[in-house]
Amino acid sequence: APKILPDAGVENYVSHVLKTTKPLPPVTFDTLLSEINWIAVAVLTIPPAISIFGAYTTKLRWETGLFAVLYYFYTGLGITAGYHRLWAHRSYNASKFMQYFLAIAGAGAVQGPIKWWARGHRAHHRYTDTELDPYNAHEGFWYSHVGWMLLKPRRKPGSADVSDLSKDEVVRWQHKNYLPLIIIAAVVVPSVIPWLLWGDLRGGYVYAAFVRLCFVQHSTFCVNSLAHWLGEASFDDKHTPKDHVVTALCTLGEGYHNFHHQFPMDYRNAIKWYQYDPTKWFIWVSQQLGLASHLKVFPDNEVRKGQLTMQLKRLRETQESLVWPSDNNDLPVISWDAFVEQSATRPLIIISGFIHDVAAFVEEHPGGAHWIVRYIGKDATTAFFGGVYDHSNAAHNLLAMKRVGVLHGGVRLAVDDKAIPPAQRLK
Amino acid sequence: APKILPDAGVENYVSHVLKTTKPLPPVTFDTLLSEINWIAVAVLTIPPAISIFGAYTTKLRWETGLFAVLYYFYTGLGITAGYHRLWAHRSYNASKFMQYFLAIAGAGAVQGPIKWWARGHRAHHRYTDTELDPYNAHEGFWYSHVGWMLLKPRRKPGSADVSDLSKDEVVRWQHKNYLPLIIIAAVVVPSVIPWLLWGDLRGGYVYAAFVRLCFVQHSTFCVNSLAHWLGEASFDDKHTPKDHVVTALCTLGEGYHNFHHQFPMDYRNAIKWYQYDPTKWFIWVSQQLGLASHLKVFPDNEVRKGQLTMQLKRLRETQESLVWPSDNNDLPVISWDAFVEQSATRPLIIISGFIHDVAAFVEEHPGGAHWIVRYIGKDATTAFFGGVYDHSNAAHNLLAMKRVGVLHGGVRLAVDDKAIPPAQRLK
Ligand code: HEM
Ligand code: HEM
Ligand SMILES: [Fe+2]
Ligand SMILES: [Fe+2]
Ligand SMILES: [Fe+2]
Ligand SMILES: [Fe+2]
Repeated sequence: APKILPDAGVENYVSHVLKTTKPLPPVTFDTLLSEINWIAVAVLTIPPAISIFGAYTTKLRWETGLFAVLYYFYTGLGITAGYHRLWAHRSYNASKFMQYFLAIAGAGAVQGPIKWWARGHRAHHRYTDTELDPYNAHEGFWYSHVGWMLLKPRRKPGSADVSDLSKDEVVRWQHKNYLPLIIIAAVVVPSVIPWLLWGDLRGGYVYAAFVRLCFVQHSTFCVNSLAHWLGEASFDDKHTPKDHVVTALCTLGEGYHNFHHQFPMDYRNAIKWYQYDPTKWFIWVSQQLGLASHLKVFPDNEVRKGQLTMQLKRLRETQESLVWPSDNNDLPVISWDAFVEQSATRPLIIISGFIHDVAAFVEEHPGGAHWIVRYIGKDATTAFFGGVYDHSNAAHNLLAMKRVGVLHGGVRLAVDDKAIPPAQRLK
Repeated sequence: APKILPDAGVENYVSHVLKTTKPLPPVTFDTLLSEINWIAVAVLTIPPAISIFGAYTTKLRWETGLFAVLYYFYTGLGITAGYHRLWAHRSYNASKFMQYFLAIAGAGAVQGPIKWWARGHRAHHRYTDTELDPYNAHEGFWYSHVGWMLLKPRRKPGSADVSDLSKDEVVRWQHKNYLPLIIIAAVVVPSVIPWLLWGDLRGGYVYAAFVRLCFVQHSTFCVNSLAHWLGEASFDDKHTPKDHVVTALCTLGEGYHNFHHQFPMDYRNAIKWYQYDPTKWFIWVSQQLGLASHLKVFPDNEVRKGQLTMQLKRLRETQESLVWPSDNNDLPVISWDAFVEQSATRPLIIISGFIHDVAAFVEEHPGGAHWIVRYIGKDATTAFFGGVYDHSNAAHNLLAMKRVGVLHGGVRLAVDDKAIPPAQRLK
């Protein structure tokens, strides 16, 4: 396929690429074996196999269990605070020490070297939900969770620039030493520490190395799957990313993903203090310790605009789901004489230029039927608006639902404030 | 003062009455003793005195404690389900048996006979927050809690019709036998039951009769004070009533008072199942048992309109608290040549007919500074809207904040969709 770079003067880079390049042919039964990404399959099946066999045959000591959880946090933060928020999004600066600390932690999560990971992730953000998005959520939950790596992709991800990472000292160091680093960080360290400290080599190997590894991996995968499926579009609903506390709990805080796709260079995923975002807390504490700086935050004014838009949108939906009074123009214009005449056969009342049929309401009237009866065939505007009782906005809204006509010559009245029920004034 | 009835053809009954009638002179030190309502003072001070002395000198047995709580619920429901929702608001029909049951329970709360209570309460609803409202919340928390009854009121409450109650068999029966009824229901029954069942006459007298009575009374008073002070105006903010769960907990569910003032004939105060409204539950269960019928519910369509209005109002406030892009008409119109010339000295970019100064943003740009730099002095409309990257709505909102001019002849563009940032499209 010819290499097309953005900025080639096309209207839309994504549709242009999709039009002018061909995907690989779909995988068939015959081509399956040659299309499988064996490395990914191995990484995704061997650790669970070891974990299940190991867990059945190895007693879990509480020290090892606790250590496995802590090591889960350490290697998880390598991905979330390191791979994701530091390298893929450059949402803050980290000291050299912290960079090495995170690069090693990230290696322990066995998700590929930083540069490869960030390249895919940047394409995911830039071409979200399109065929140039490597984890395209429109292909289904399992595709975005793991499917995308098990088979060789039908298309190259869209172009994304990682030249900054190609030049980065720590990224290059990790790349060059990737294989030894994963062996050390994913297996050796979590086995040896429980061995040295409380003599549980086997437990460390099973629980802190492999069981922990499975959790960290699927935790990250959930950001591509669950975070594009479960929850609310709090800031924008153009694409699939969603905000949900459950996803946040599964992913060290990456579950406020709708926010994150709108403001990817923000070091936070959760903006409220009470939302679960330990990755944000970790970065913030690192700043207090002098290890991190230049924490980027999107202007609050713009964040709130996104929220406002979605909230207004939801209220518009409520508005549309409600029944509103007939429009002036749909109502017949009735003369005073005709009104008085018709009132003899059905209970009609005029209030602010509109004629209302109160048949179903007389007996229901909270102020008593007698008030309504007294005003049949008459104009009750003054009585309704305070002459007798200054009705609530709710009463006014309800009144407007009973309109059956406009009084001829009463139209002047029908444009003033009293003619517009309160719930329609803000529309 | 002359008696003025509503429907006298005045514009506003309340202001008319206030203008044409004189209040009693303010209470002074000299007139204090003769202006005090001694019955109310007795009812409000003797039970607490007995309670405090009694509680210091009487051991509380758990059976008596439990019974006092149950008796609190019984007599409380007499007020909330009986006096208030049945008689004052006619929000449902009750069988004769249930009416007597509630009339006796209500007597046990010692808050005056039904007719007197409902008359004041109807005036409170009809003239809320005015000087014709007997518990006028604008007079302060303590006035609406107890102050209004300790001194003789300066004005008669506004007119309110209780002719339905004057004719009511149970209301009349309670009225005629009110004194014996309160002695029996407030003191005798709650003393005798613990005495007969577990031999605790003194405990019953102190805890189930008097301590319980103090709680029931102040619980009801809270509906006039706390419910007009604490919480949110969820349905309408024209008057002081508020919704709050704490008030609901104190008042057997009468704390959703903003709803209640908008929809006083609704048998519910809380509309969601998870909100605390035991009075509603009690009425509903009575219906299941065939003791109550015709439970009135305001049309959901109108209830939601009130809510919608308030929610829109709150979003309008957010909208006004945010900074929005300069209006087209406030921006200078700049020619293409002037734009190119000025771009030599400061970073200007054209997107959809607007000229943007991106000085503060180049280094911050999440897509990298180079993209912006490349477009200085150029039109980046296509690149910004997908030619390179189809920016998020957030980016589009942010872009609009950087407007410094309109391109001469680019105005056609400036009226299409791309010119209106997403957050402004729903306005
Ligand atoms: C179809 C026309 C009317 C409708 C829909 C209507 C609706 C209502 C509603 C919903 C209430 C409950 C309190 C509130 O929400 O404000 C109410 C109360 C009342 N209305 Fe009307 N009303 C109508 C006409 C009238 C007229 C013509 C009069 C008098 C001439 C009147 C006098 C009263 C009075 C005195 C109350 C009692 C307030 C109270 O005790 O809380 N209403 N009405
Ligand atoms: C002042 C004008 C611009 C503003 C305010 C702006 C804003 C942003 C923002 C907020 C993002 C983060 C992702 C998002 O929210 O969509 C972004 C990303 C990006 N922008 Fe811009 N941008 C501007 C101009 C441009 C121009 C002219 C280009 C290209 C010629 C460009 C190319 C990109 C690219 C490639 C990304 C990276 C997307 C990613 O990796 O997630 N931007 N821009
Ligand atoms: Fe995503
Ligand atoms: Fe991301
Ligand atoms: Fe009230
Ligand atoms: Fe009420």
